[in-house]
Amino acid sequence: MSTPPPYLVPSRLAKRTYYEHETICAILDEALFCTISYAVDNKPFSIPTAFVRYEDKIYIHGSVGSHFIRTIETGIPVCISVMLTDSLVVAKSAFSHSVNYRSVIIFSKAEKVEDIETKRAAFEWLTNKIVPDSWDYLRPMTDSEVRKTTALAFSFDEASAKMRDGMPKDEPEDQELPIWSGLIPLQTLRGKPMADESSQNIPLPQHLS
Amino acid sequence: MSTPPPYLVPSRLAKRTYYEHETICAILDEALFCTISYAVDNKPFSIPTAFVRYEDKIYIHGSVGSHFIRTIETGIPVCISVMLTDSLVVAKSAFSHSVNYRSVIIFSKAEKVEDIETKRAAFEWLTNKIVPDSWDYLRPMTDSEVRKTTALAFSFDEASAKMRDGMPKDEPEDQELPIWSGLIPLQTLRGKPMADESSQNIPLPQHLS
Repeated sequence: MSTPPPYLVPSRLAKRTYYEHETICAILDEALFCTISYAVDNKPFSIPTAFVRYEDKIYIHGSVGSHFIRTIETGIPVCISVMLTDSLVVAKSAFSHSVNYRSVIIFSKAEKVEDIETKRAAFEWLTNKIVPDSWDYLRPMTDSEVRKTTALAFSFDEASAKMRDGMPKDEPEDQELPIWSGLIPLQTLRGKPMADESSQNIPLPQHLS
Repeated sequence: MSTPPPYLVPSRLAKRTYYEHETICAILDEALFCTISYAVDNKPFSIPTAFVRYEDKIYIHGSVGSHFIRTIETGIPVCISVMLTDSLVVAKSAFSHSVNYRSVIIFSKAEKVEDIETKRAAFEWLTNKIVPDSWDYLRPMTDSEVRKTTALAFSFDEASAKMRDGMPKDEPEDQELPIWSGLIPLQTLRGKPMADESSQNIPLPQHLS
């Protein structure tokens, strides 16, 4: 995207905005969940959902009976947002507090994935993103399951990333105050897997160890 | 809310939906960030931002110059969504995979906080939510800083929570398969505070220890 459309140019802090494909992909690939918004009669609706990026598209899935899926599969405009929070930025004044984050905003329209092999592939990409290397270990997805699930693809040609990193930026007159300032890291961790009743005697597969 | 409006009744999995004030507040009080969506000419826009609940309203803040703030402070309809993710639900089939989450969706309209003392209080509530007990330790907020920042309040009379918890629910015919199933907890932790250059010789205050 050489010249971004006006709605991708922020009113403030343009220095924190990036349009490079690699920058956007890195954030999309780290985040497990996005929020998808759409509007009906100018009334907005938002739904958080899991997603995966594969090549130049992102994919979500949902039941063929879902009102949300049926509304956006018609191709109405959607806004997809993703945010990763890296740390709380604790300054000497509340006014200079901030957050270190990496976010992406995408303006797009759903394309329904009709080809059954692409659809199955989208479910494989999504499953392997959420639980890496797990697809081949699982009971294979049946044709009936593929049919009961809608896959939607979205291009992200119209997208921007916004990021802040680094330490607090206190006002010059505050720099000498004896008030602690710095970062509080926010970490999202995967904990130790907890087997359900049926799996008490089943070895934890290597991809979960 | 005795009878929820139709757009608060989900098309699927109604058993996962809750309307109780306490349930909604518990999720709002644990989440640091929400996503706010609005629409202009049926084109949706979403912005992630920090927020705080205080009594029956939630509050956000932003620069008086922010295009986002100036658009929604007019009182157009917004949708506010919040999601906490507790664990990945790993089933024996991809189809039965799920996520344990707690989410809230609110339909509301911004009310601009004009009273300067309420506005200052909203910044105190927000600061103390993000970094508990920190407000009184910080350099006091000046009147000029209060004037440069907009505070918006939103009622959440029209809200619903949606939650899933518990173990995977595999199909009966999959129960005996020798495939591991269970939960992978997702934890968001605050790491060890990292002092900036100005704070190398300043003791870490008790509220950050």
